Amino acid sequence: MYRAPVSEIVFTLERVAGASAPLRDGLFGDLDEATLRAVLDEAGRFAAEVLAPVAAVGDRVGASWAGGAVTMPPGWKEVYRRWREAGWASLTAPPELGGQGLPACVSVAVQEMWNAASMAYGVGPTLTLAAVEALEAHASEELRRLYAPKLASGEWTGTMNLTEPQAGSDLGALATRAERAADGSYRIFGQKIFITYGEHDMAGNIVHLVLARLPGAPPGTKGISMFLVPKFLPDADGAPGVRNDVFCAGIEEKMGLHASPTCTMIYGGGHAGGEKGAVGWLVGEENRGLNCMFTMMNSARLAVGIEGVGVAERALQQATAYAVERRQGRAPGQPEAGMSPIIAHPDVRRMLLSMRSLTAASRAICYACAVAIDRGRLEPDPGARASWRERANLLTPVAKAFSTDAGVEVASLGVQVHGGMGYIEETGAARLYRDSRIAPIYEGTNGIQAIDLATRKLPAAGGETIRAYLRELAETAAEARASNRAGMARIADRLAASLEDLSVATEHLLAGLAKGDIAGVLAGATPYLRLFGLAAGGAYLARAALLSDAGGDAERLRMAIARFHADRHLPETAALRVAIVEGAESLTEAPPELLAG
Amino acid sequence: MYRAPVSEIVFTLERVAGASAPLRDGLFGDLDEATLRAVLDEAGRFAAEVLAPVAAVGDRVGASWAGGAVTMPPGWKEVYRRWREAGWASLTAPPELGGQGLPACVSVAVQEMWNAASMAYGVGPTLTLAAVEALEAHASEELRRLYAPKLASGEWTGTMNLTEPQAGSDLGALATRAERAADGSYRIFGQKIFITYGEHDMAGNIVHLVLARLPGAPPGTKGISMFLVPKFLPDADGAPGVRNDVFCAGIEEKMGLHASPTCTMIYGGGHAGGEKGAVGWLVGEENRGLNCMFTMMNSARLAVGIEGVGVAERALQQATAYAVERRQGRAPGQPEAGMSPIIAHPDVRRMLLSMRSLTAASRAICYACAVAIDRGRLEPDPGARASWRERANLLTPVAKAFSTDAGVEVASLGVQVHGGMGYIEETGAARLYRDSRIAPIYEGTNGIQAIDLATRKLPAAGGETIRAYLRELAETAAEARASNRAGMARIADRLAASLEDLSVATEHLLAGLAKGDIAGVLAGATPYLRLFGLAAGGAYLARAALLSDAGGDAERLRMAIARFHADRHLPETAALRVAIVEGAESLTEAPPELLAG
Repeated sequence: MYRAPVSEIVFTLERVAGASAPLRDGLFGDLDEATLRAVLDEAGRFAAEVLAPVAAVGDRVGASWAGGAVTMPPGWKEVYRRWREAGWASLTAPPELGGQGLPACVSVAVQEMWNAASMAYGVGPTLTLAAVEALEAHASEELRRLYAPKLASGEWTGTMNLTEPQAGSDLGALATRAERAADGSYRIFGQKIFITYGEHDMAGNIVHLVLARLPGAPPGTKGISMFLVPKFLPDADGAPGVRNDVFCAGIEEKMGLHASPTCTMIYGGGHAGGEKGAVGWLVGEENRGLNCMFTMMNSARLAVGIEGVGVAERALQQATAYAVERRQGRAPGQPEAGMSPIIAHPDVRRMLLSMRSLTAASRAICYACAVAIDRGRLEPDPGARASWRERANLLTPVAKAFSTDAGVEVASLGVQVHGGMGYIEETGAARLYRDSRIAPIYEGTNGIQAIDLATRKLPAAGGETIRAYLRELAETAAEARASNRAGMARIADRLAASLEDLSVATEHLLAGLAKGDIAGVLAGATPYLRLFGLAAGGAYLARAALLSDAGGDAERLRMAIARFHADRHLPETAALRVAIVEGAESLTEAPPELLAG
Repeated sequence: MYRAPVSEIVFTLERVAGASAPLRDGLFGDLDEATLRAVLDEAGRFAAEVLAPVAAVGDRVGASWAGGAVTMPPGWKEVYRRWREAGWASLTAPPELGGQGLPACVSVAVQEMWNAASMAYGVGPTLTLAAVEALEAHASEELRRLYAPKLASGEWTGTMNLTEPQAGSDLGALATRAERAADGSYRIFGQKIFITYGEHDMAGNIVHLVLARLPGAPPGTKGISMFLVPKFLPDADGAPGVRNDVFCAGIEEKMGLHASPTCTMIYGGGHAGGEKGAVGWLVGEENRGLNCMFTMMNSARLAVGIEGVGVAERALQQATAYAVERRQGRAPGQPEAGMSPIIAHPDVRRMLLSMRSLTAASRAICYACAVAIDRGRLEPDPGARASWRERANLLTPVAKAFSTDAGVEVASLGVQVHGGMGYIEETGAARLYRDSRIAPIYEGTNGIQAIDLATRKLPAAGGETIRAYLRELAETAAEARASNRAGMARIADRLAASLEDLSVATEHLLAGLAKGDIAGVLAGATPYLRLFGLAAGGAYLARAALLSDAGGDAERLRMAIARFHADRHLPETAALRVAIVEGAESLTEAPPELLAG
């Protein structure tokens, strides 16, 4: 049973992550608070009533492959049809493509719900959205006209084809090749692996965006181009026509996400009969394919971050329900007679509060990142746009990595709250744990995110982007300090200390970059990202508590979460600071040869 | 591919965990270092060559149930036969039962290897060992004579039947009942769940130790008795005879450990035909069943801790091999041409060193616990025996919980090192991750272990047991301080700081117990156990480094591990101290009602 936490989502989005200002200023067109709430209510209902019920069968039966075709689990095709017909596919697509043109911050809130209902489902639409984005930004008018509306409506779905066996994190190593054809199209040859929803039976056509090399292209990432390769070539009416020479050679047997087919795709294997070579068209310029990828990168990475939030919320709800229901032992302060619900045991509440605070902190970070993405596109002033874009760039790796690590941690705590039942598949806690584990890996591993943050995002604008952000977070600490609510002073102290840790670590890494000590900076990258997420998350949780003075249960709960995070998670930042500032040698002086044995 | 790290195991056991003193003093009979090494070498060979190869098929095919019978995966029956014939079942059994009478500290080292090769296999023998132990300590001469030798040789296997649907962590709630029969035997009626290897086809008979209530027994844990219930009643020759009325009603579909059948057992369901009621015999005294369980508790919990170590070692080896093989990107300081092996990337080395230090720390804690168990049994002086028993009691919950949490953490890092391949089942990294996740749950959840440590083990001997242990660890810090090896001073500083954190947290909890603030103590229990494990583990790693001055690779590696742990893990203890000393209110003031929504 999933219940979409719409009120909490709206509160976080508008008040904590700062969507209310652009909303009020008309940056999102005629979207107002009432409409926003209505959209989220409706999405919550769909997620809970239509999508969530097929998650378990999706996991148990999984997608299956035979002879190049992939059959989705029972009920999934129908759910996709209803989802598309309800207009969810086109939420963020521009009105000229028949979409509703809603901003990224609404999209991300809605995506949280799809992922909470079923992460295996939620990962699919993300890719189609990314494809629309790439086409809008880079494709020719003709390609756009032919493909974008069908992708935007969800009639067709999209994929991203990056990875090859020898080219994962290092795209420079990819070997798929493209040849120019006489008619201006291209023929693609090669093998791509780990292609999410590369093949399935829910949509009439599948549009692959494929990275490949042209003859004579420079080596490495500077010689990569992007091609659009449809499963079926559109006919004169734009309907799916001739079968293209792109085939799914199999799907992976994965630890989780069983309903999401992870495909090996063969381009130009001659499987369609006739001449070999998958027909494709160039998107953007030759050898600038990585640029096209980067267009999608921020929103795609944020979309993965929100998978972590969705799974975490679902695990939290499930563990809470179990902890209320299940009775074992007698907790301190509980009646002598009978067993206490396990939620009365302090250690179980520790787990539930840890789950809550990590979930809420991750949600706030992801939403704040989405708001920055929107303002970076929509602010009328070019300077403001640029500075919000920098903010979005800064927050994206944190949103991706911190939230997906949190997703795994929360799902693991969810298993633990269930005790032995958590290890049994029937409760669903195990599924969330298995599903969550991919998110720290794909769309750039969390290690890559940390490197991106430390080596590319920190030095942006001479370090002023991060410093401005830190000043903003410090204002929250100051407000907490100025409040006279019980418990707020301690939250303020801890938050200020963590922000100081973050500031010191930031300057340490910036200084390391300035003096070219790359190995030293890389050694601190992952602890730095975690420190960033804990401290920024702590500021958002404190802000949520500060804004909650009505005295109701939701308000008291926000205070309890902020306090728990301050007492139990924020002290970790001092340890991370030590690892960053003093711990580089523990890696740089342990050479590969020593660890290889 | 598993390669048993026998040299490291021997070094840790003898030098770090302190087995060399009792070994030298003849406490282990005629066991000497050469024999010990030979036994471990042989076990390592069996684990690597015979056991490890069936792990993957065990996971893929799993144990299967039909009509009350459980069929083990292909090859498992044969492996069990070879394992038993090689004498591994009877390693620790007393010579009068045909066993080799080796101490617990050897057994635990060998168990590490079984678990590394296949945790689904390793969990089985543990239960049989526990059954032998219980029978030796509590059963009548007749029961012992009839059952103990067959269990000791592995001809028959044993189980522990505690859990019922409503009675998991709270055994007081169990409802299985026993009726006295005219011949002095009993008839057992009830349902037990989560019974590991409750049914299988590898041995001629299965001997269940079952907790049940006699008519009129006091409620709660004071009214529980233990019964021996064989699958087949021994005939006049002691061979398996009439089928008893105990049947396996099904096995659980679990996240991992697929080859280990987790059985629902029905006692007295009438499935054998004839009169209803499973025939059983009392072990120990009536209503003292929990006492019999406690006999096995320390070694059973330690056995679970070592599962964590085994899985961690395996995950470490696999991730290391992958990191040496797999090439992506160019790491700092690596040649321009071609891609670097990922082990050259600092963030990958961070993961590998984190895996190494957690594995080595957990191993040392488990082995030190085993040595304490042995000395608590074998020391000639009663005072020494008592004080080693206290030490074993103290270390047991840490060995169980810290090591199994480490197992999950290390397995998760192992997945991450593999990137996308880690999520695919074929590499085996995913299996280790799934398998490892049960260990923090069973044999008393890690939350229960933390409560046991904080509320029962700390106050033992008025707090002197823990204080004496802390003084011993402080000696290692002092030795590190006195050493003039490069880097040792910093290790000494960090270790001393962490031991101070542990000491302060210990006194805080003892004071809390003294003033009856149970809720406050429980709120700090889990952070306290983690703090204990990190600090004690840090002392053992420092000791290992101190003892390694030969300058070879193994020695340099131990230094690198101790240093990494000091720089990257020990700083966490300050945060845990804050959570313990100042964080109780974050739980006690967040009442169940607030979190239930």
